[in-house]
Amino acid sequence: MRLKDTGEFGLIQLFRKKFPSQNKKVVLGLGDDCAVIKASPQKLLLLTTDSLMEKVHFDTSYLTWEQIGKKSMAANISDMAAMGGEPISGLLSLGLPKRMETDYVLKLYSGINRMAKSFGFSISGGDIFLSDKVVITVSLLGEVKPSFLKKRSGAKEGDILCVTGELGESFAGLELLKKYRKLSRFPSDKKILDKHLNPLPRLKESRVLVKNLKVTSMIDISDGLLGDLYHILEESKVGAVLFEEKIPISKKISKISQHLKYSSLHYALNSGEEYELLFTIKKGNIESLKRLKIRISVIGEITNRVKRIEMIDKNGKVKALKKRGYEHF
Amino acid sequence: MRLKDTGEFGLIQLFRKKFPSQNKKVVLGLGDDCAVIKASPQKLLLLTTDSLMEKVHFDTSYLTWEQIGKKSMAANISDMAAMGGEPISGLLSLGLPKRMETDYVLKLYSGINRMAKSFGFSISGGDIFLSDKVVITVSLLGEVKPSFLKKRSGAKEGDILCVTGELGESFAGLELLKKYRKLSRFPSDKKILDKHLNPLPRLKESRVLVKNLKVTSMIDISDGLLGDLYHILEESKVGAVLFEEKIPISKKISKISQHLKYSSLHYALNSGEEYELLFTIKKGNIESLKRLKIRISVIGEITNRVKRIEMIDKNGKVKALKKRGYEHF
Repeated sequence: MRLKDTGEFGLIQLFRKKFPSQNKKVVLGLGDDCAVIKASPQKLLLLTTDSLMEKVHFDTSYLTWEQIGKKSMAANISDMAAMGGEPISGLLSLGLPKRMETDYVLKLYSGINRMAKSFGFSISGGDIFLSDKVVITVSLLGEVKPSFLKKRSGAKEGDILCVTGELGESFAGLELLKKYRKLSRFPSDKKILDKHLNPLPRLKESRVLVKNLKVTSMIDISDGLLGDLYHILEESKVGAVLFEEKIPISKKISKISQHLKYSSLHYALNSGEEYELLFTIKKGNIESLKRLKIRISVIGEITNRVKRIEMIDKNGKVKALKKRGYEHF
Repeated sequence: MRLKDTGEFGLIQLFRKKFPSQNKKVVLGLGDDCAVIKASPQKLLLLTTDSLMEKVHFDTSYLTWEQIGKKSMAANISDMAAMGGEPISGLLSLGLPKRMETDYVLKLYSGINRMAKSFGFSISGGDIFLSDKVVITVSLLGEVKPSFLKKRSGAKEGDILCVTGELGESFAGLELLKKYRKLSRFPSDKKILDKHLNPLPRLKESRVLVKNLKVTSMIDISDGLLGDLYHILEESKVGAVLFEEKIPISKKISKISQHLKYSSLHYALNSGEEYELLFTIKKGNIESLKRLKIRISVIGEITNRVKRIEMIDKNGKVKALKKRGYEHF
């Protein structure tokens, strides 16, 4: 069997099954946004890693090296946010071609460092090696108070499903970038590209959420709303129903829909790299939710129909939805 | 300027200068074997990462996937040993080609896991992505008691320079593998290949050393004795004199010198990926050293001639040596 048949998530399942965790200090291993390690009774450590590879994850024809650096750090910070934690220190492993301009590498590092700095930490170690294409692997150490730790596995039937911000722009932006290539040829307001080019992880929002609400499960949207919701459903052994009218579709993508291939709803449901937070709370928390000064939409409810995602459309009709999480292979 | 001009270590120096560490919890950033983070007054955390790339770091014509997995973990564990620490948990980022056999990936993971298991921990998270060539990045979290922490920077004039084990086999083994390619064509005892094919990090030896001696600086030999000694001299702002007759040249490579290009001494001085520990101790510790049940050689002394490596040969003649640390670019 080859990887294109096994698939990315199939491979992770094989790893989990065949090689269970060894160290008693590891509270949570493969299968969430971060690994969780018990440092002391008062503190848990979080570990996460994320790689970007030239041509696979980014294209230098429309991203600057500084933006690529920021993106590689954003993905990791977002994983910390998804678990309610805060980053302390980062490691960087860089695969670089011999002929690459040193100045570009410094811009890349500057982007990584600037994103880290804005969240109060920096890169403290790493590795550099020769590679045909640029490979950037950031690993992050973070910490979290045990009561703030949020996993994918805590959602219960009857919980309310919420999401921060607006959805769809990252996918739509990527599609426009691929279509028009050069920014100068771009047909409309370039602000729609911001979420794809300069993503901002929701670390501060995560803090507000875990401090003020009974969050029962949480994940960041890196695989798309449906893909990441499916991860929650899988790990929590529940189902979900979405209210179509409540999905926070970005107004910007609705405006330029004539340039796009799919419906706005399709982008909102399937846009990866959004780095918004998708989470569930206890039903009784709806009033507290309204008092928070963050844009949050209540988009659905948790059901007992394990791994099933349903949607109630404008006319009250229920339909089953397929998950479409991004797979590398 | 391009990377081939800046060089690997030049680039790291640029990173250190331009982007200093931000977080107060980071006690030691870029430039040692691990980053050091203060978790509590009683405990320091260690972070390290190391990547292996197909064709650059390993060749599947003479290494099995299981051996490649073990090697990728060994390098990281060795970095922990070099600082006196112990690993707790690992992260794995894997770049894999679509057409790769899933079975090979499982063998690779099994090697990684087996090496980790033999030191009491395992992989607890990671990332998988599409790549033309296999890229393996292991990141490791470890811990160390503050009094056991050993840096590259603590060597003082008059300290004694020591090394564990025997030197030269990893480089000589690699050369033989490249020359004869297939193991079946191999002209002599294959045991000489063991250090290159199945390296064993000196984690247990590190423990014995930091518990029983006043170790003033320590590093693992991944760049060769001269290259890594130079790292100690740079960070400690001292020099060193080596006694040629005391260098523990592997007897195996002396035996097959007719198949090799260089002198046995050359291999012993420049063999990377040895994963032996190179360290300095206070002069008064020589008696305690002899009582330890580890093979250790006293090979030299620390001088005040900053960054100069000298060697006293069999006839008592002093000559200056050039460092030759491996650079990727």
